[in-house]
Amino acid sequence: MSAHETAGDIVTAGMIVIGDEILSGRTKDQNIGYIAEHCTTIGIQLREVRVVADVEAEIVEAVNMLRVRNTYVFTTGGIGPTHDDITADSIAAAFGVPIDIDPRAMAIMTPYYAERGLEFTDARKRMARIPEGAELIANAVSNAPGFMLDNVIVMAGIPKVMHMMLDDVTPRLKTGKKMLSVTIPLHQPESEISALLGAAQETWPDVSMGSYPFFEHGKYGTQLVLRATDKARLADAETAVKGELESRGWLEG
Amino acid sequence: MSAHETAGDIVTAGMIVIGDEILSGRTKDQNIGYIAEHCTTIGIQLREVRVVADVEAEIVEAVNMLRVRNTYVFTTGGIGPTHDDITADSIAAAFGVPIDIDPRAMAIMTPYYAERGLEFTDARKRMARIPEGAELIANAVSNAPGFMLDNVIVMAGIPKVMHMMLDDVTPRLKTGKKMLSVTIPLHQPESEISALLGAAQETWPDVSMGSYPFFEHGKYGTQLVLRATDKARLADAETAVKGELESRGWLEG
Repeated sequence: MSAHETAGDIVTAGMIVIGDEILSGRTKDQNIGYIAEHCTTIGIQLREVRVVADVEAEIVEAVNMLRVRNTYVFTTGGIGPTHDDITADSIAAAFGVPIDIDPRAMAIMTPYYAERGLEFTDARKRMARIPEGAELIANAVSNAPGFMLDNVIVMAGIPKVMHMMLDDVTPRLKTGKKMLSVTIPLHQPESEISALLGAAQETWPDVSMGSYPFFEHGKYGTQLVLRATDKARLADAETAVKGELESRGWLEG
Repeated sequence: MSAHETAGDIVTAGMIVIGDEILSGRTKDQNIGYIAEHCTTIGIQLREVRVVADVEAEIVEAVNMLRVRNTYVFTTGGIGPTHDDITADSIAAAFGVPIDIDPRAMAIMTPYYAERGLEFTDARKRMARIPEGAELIANAVSNAPGFMLDNVIVMAGIPKVMHMMLDDVTPRLKTGKKMLSVTIPLHQPESEISALLGAAQETWPDVSMGSYPFFEHGKYGTQLVLRATDKARLADAETAVKGELESRGWLEG
């Protein structure tokens, strides 16, 4: 599939986390889980994530790989004012378009610094560099905008700022059928229920069945998760699986 | 560079997080940050991370891409007993080697279940499937082993289990020069210090300089981080940068 084409009602996304600080372990990423959950909620399937260093060639490679095979690509990180913030330039390079200080960004940022009596330094103007053809994404927290170029959505790495940008861009995104899910908590370890679950998966190929072990108070338990876009099929599968669990005395409550 | 070759004393790693539950946002990954920090501590540079779905072709693609361009690849997730745990089979496919129930794994697991009066079911035996040529990695928490095949280290996704496996495998890894770092906390926003930092980076090309903004009590601050493998060069750069900061009245305490 080429960019923007999707199979039926399925809308997919890739995500790229940009930053040496994540790879060194200095900063713990909080954005993957947030964007993953947001995508699921609005009906976009997050298919793949990459964490890459602050190296233009690596950012370009990841952007160009993911943007052709997903409806959207979200990036976080690397759009600040310092020398190692190279995301905007790397996105321009990936698309082969020019990048320069953008008058729309300047119009937003100039009064912001003026009102605060702060100098609009060259470093701050660096944050107004936007690739040609991009739409701006508002930043209600700290003003400097993100942007969306074609299907690539470029956001800040600071979680609080990223959340606001994601809220701003979300209404512009097309979304697909929502993935619905049912979770069934069990006190059995995963290895006890796997045969039952494997058989159920064969019977219900259109309902994705997963099991997620947890370890609590020295004992293993399992969360069974059934996922499907068709509500009726999901309900039927849930009834069938719960029946199987009940017949073995494994269903809680 | 081919697999295992490294530039001088640099040892690199890639990481692959395997699991639909991370991409759906249902489970929040805790392993990237842990492994990143562990690698930095022992002198391995984590260069790239991918999160991929429980799909064999995608796991194989990621493994084969990352294993040839890094000294090591760490994987987490997908080695449990259920039908969607396909990591071991996917690693075997990536290397083109057979996979079967491993007598060494059986020797570890059989007494474990016997002592607990639990049946060693087919599902549990699935966790004894190990690709040919792999070395086992001990699992002191829940018994079923991980493994290391060539330069690929395959571990559980449950953080507690992964930590034990990482401890077990670490003494077998070669490590490079440790990346040393110095952090300088500042109350200035990143955009104030970026010019100073950019100039310092040009003067000290072998000392990587990064700035990480934070937002606290309604104000922006910045952590300056200087990183280098050469202790003396790092100390000299620290002195120089602190001198510049002090002359502007920006150095704390």
